[in-house]
Amino acid sequence: MTRYETTELERLYERWDQLGREERTESFRALPRQEAQDLFVDLTSQHQAMLLLDLPEAERRIWLRLLEPDDAADLIQEAPEENRTELLALLDDLSRREVSALLAYEEDEAGGLMSPRFARLRPDMTVDQAISYLRLQGPHLETIYYAYVLDHEQRLLGVVSFRDLFATPGNRAVSDLMQCDLVSASEETDQEEIARLFADHDLLALPVVDAEGRMKGIVTVDDIVDVVQEEASEDIQKIGGMEALDAPYLATGFWDLVRKRAGWLSALFVGEMLTVTAMAHYEEQLAQAIVLAVFIPLIISSGGNSGSQASTLVIRAMAIGEVRLRDWWRVLRREILSGLMLGGVLAVLGLLRVLIGDALGSKVYGGYPTAIGLTVGISLLGVVVFGTICGSMLPFLLRRVNLDPASASAPLVATLVDVTGLIIFFSVAGLLLSGKLL
Amino acid sequence: MTRYETTELERLYERWDQLGREERTESFRALPRQEAQDLFVDLTSQHQAMLLLDLPEAERRIWLRLLEPDDAADLIQEAPEENRTELLALLDDLSRREVSALLAYEEDEAGGLMSPRFARLRPDMTVDQAISYLRLQGPHLETIYYAYVLDHEQRLLGVVSFRDLFATPGNRAVSDLMQCDLVSASEETDQEEIARLFADHDLLALPVVDAEGRMKGIVTVDDIVDVVQEEASEDIQKIGGMEALDAPYLATGFWDLVRKRAGWLSALFVGEMLTVTAMAHYEEQLAQAIVLAVFIPLIISSGGNSGSQASTLVIRAMAIGEVRLRDWWRVLRREILSGLMLGGVLAVLGLLRVLIGDALGSKVYGGYPTAIGLTVGISLLGVVVFGTICGSMLPFLLRRVNLDPASASAPLVATLVDVTGLIIFFSVAGLLLSGKLL
Repeated sequence: MTRYETTELERLYERWDQLGREERTESFRALPRQEAQDLFVDLTSQHQAMLLLDLPEAERRIWLRLLEPDDAADLIQEAPEENRTELLALLDDLSRREVSALLAYEEDEAGGLMSPRFARLRPDMTVDQAISYLRLQGPHLETIYYAYVLDHEQRLLGVVSFRDLFATPGNRAVSDLMQCDLVSASEETDQEEIARLFADHDLLALPVVDAEGRMKGIVTVDDIVDVVQEEASEDIQKIGGMEALDAPYLATGFWDLVRKRAGWLSALFVGEMLTVTAMAHYEEQLAQAIVLAVFIPLIISSGGNSGSQASTLVIRAMAIGEVRLRDWWRVLRREILSGLMLGGVLAVLGLLRVLIGDALGSKVYGGYPTAIGLTVGISLLGVVVFGTICGSMLPFLLRRVNLDPASASAPLVATLVDVTGLIIFFSVAGLLLSGKLL
Repeated sequence: MTRYETTELERLYERWDQLGREERTESFRALPRQEAQDLFVDLTSQHQAMLLLDLPEAERRIWLRLLEPDDAADLIQEAPEENRTELLALLDDLSRREVSALLAYEEDEAGGLMSPRFARLRPDMTVDQAISYLRLQGPHLETIYYAYVLDHEQRLLGVVSFRDLFATPGNRAVSDLMQCDLVSASEETDQEEIARLFADHDLLALPVVDAEGRMKGIVTVDDIVDVVQEEASEDIQKIGGMEALDAPYLATGFWDLVRKRAGWLSALFVGEMLTVTAMAHYEEQLAQAIVLAVFIPLIISSGGNSGSQASTLVIRAMAIGEVRLRDWWRVLRREILSGLMLGGVLAVLGLLRVLIGDALGSKVYGGYPTAIGLTVGISLLGVVVFGTICGSMLPFLLRRVNLDPASASAPLVATLVDVTGLIIFFSVAGLLLSGKLL
């Protein structure tokens, strides 16, 4: 037995992103038929579409027909608008009808993910009849792990697992065996919600039904692994402070990459300009006590860091359904307490830094190390508590107004907290240092 | 058909995290038998273990025996050390042997994820014989989507999908049908690598073989959805600048939550203290030109933001296998170019901010708006390029020394870039403003 990972084919697959389009077509056409099939099926829809359009027209048909309807629909969705009709025409009649139906759905909802090729049974069949009937359907099915029991109007009555079917005497009726209380999705269910259903219930396949309870298709768990990876990538990129890429990093065009980063980076920069205004406002205090300037990076970054921790925690907990909108109050209570603890730790460290610096002979404190140390410490406490509150509540706010909570990125929270951090710091300094340095 | 999402049971499942241990046991024991089973199987291993130990000893056996060997092993791993032997004793002989074998593996490698209950066939069986034989094995199998063809020494020869088995005339031999070129993992393959294999090859199950090619078990895709979610959560939390939680946010104890955040937050704080040293070093320049202080938050935050973008991009691309160690040079080239573009955009915005501020009558520029504008612009370009390089290369560096690239968190990169940002800024100021403000 050869292990796939080490074969020539696997290496080609890994290098795929890095090849030029011509090289791809060439290497693909040089492969033996079976290997070419394996490779083609494994490629992303985007790469499949590119490759297919680069092949001579006469060859396209066999490759497109290799795909299940849901995968064919994905490929066609990735192809340029003007090629879609021509690609659809390559399919046989049944597949074309199925694929056209799938193309009507959004790519990221149940309808766009599902396959119409599921195993069907009638409730009055015996187990033996059911097994023979499934053997007939076999070649046309996406998965046969579950068989769905439908009435004459295609309404979903229940589900039978193959395991149960196989373990039951052949003369029992399917209706005795089927489980009626089952998890299902509607055609519009969002893919994130679907991934959650799969994870919560350890499903292998999820039936999709319309408003009248008629079965439309199944989403299988192998498609969900991709969805989960994709959603996590999008969230991580948004948390990093940019637009989601929608494609592998190295496969994203350079200008596309720059554009997706420049937008947020510029927006954050413009927001951060408020710090210039704030600092200019405190110019006089700064001139009197340069020592204040010295601590500014330390203080504002602490607010940003604690805010980043809180926002990523909440964003992730929301994405996998652990935290819902109505939990905001529990989260807030928790985060205020956490903020007080974390801020307390940093306050002590900050105070120590000033006192030790002074003891080691630093001249920067101008004779008021304790007052300055307390100013730094109290500001840190305030900034960390504020950062934690901001970071944990911003994702709730975004979700409340139907924006993606993941946009509450570490850089966005840091930017929000920076201005406030300066105000907190100069206010505390005003109170504790007036009559001394100010 | 009731949809699972809206039932009483689903609501209980969702609230599970928020219930006290006693409430959980009570609500669980109040459920009808079938619903209790559904709930128990859906709970995380950690919750299963807690619940099981809270039930009267006489009841534990039936619940533990409900689980597949791999799930039972996970539960036992989550139970306190002192309860493990006693829990193992509740299993029947066969299961106990299987579970003990699984407990010998790490939880996050193939051996710890796999189930020993896979469908086996001999190569010389006919398709009809194979189907009957699988009907016998049915009740004991984890999945029957694939059947594995083994020789007399349990070496894996190939795989037959049920779909193919069902679609083939009954008198053909299994060996004619089986596919020999298959993806497999060894017992020590890490779960992240396994998730990658599933995603790359759209697998439903992955066979695990030992060094001699003997089949030990299968990992099924439903377990992989959990793995993928878990790995993404860990990465997101690390990117947010803290230790991974290992449990849902609301289920993590308060002190545990604080501890996992305080460590990194303090470490970052101590690192950020270098900015105090750097600023104190430039005290004289600051005293001469307070205007420099005014721009410090803007400049260092831009470095942090661009670094955060680059590091999250690379961390994610590494996690899903799009970028490997050997790609560092391609990534570096790309990121230097991106950094130049992005830095250029911010430099222009920064310069405009100064010139417009001056035109609107701000006194802060002391008669040298152009020189100050250029200082700000050039520093921004330098800081963004440096931030981008730092952010994109730190994950490679960490992986190179076998640390988790995800530890190159947004806050860590920001901290690294802050000190350098100050040095860049004061150096540029020294060049452009000497003889003017300095």
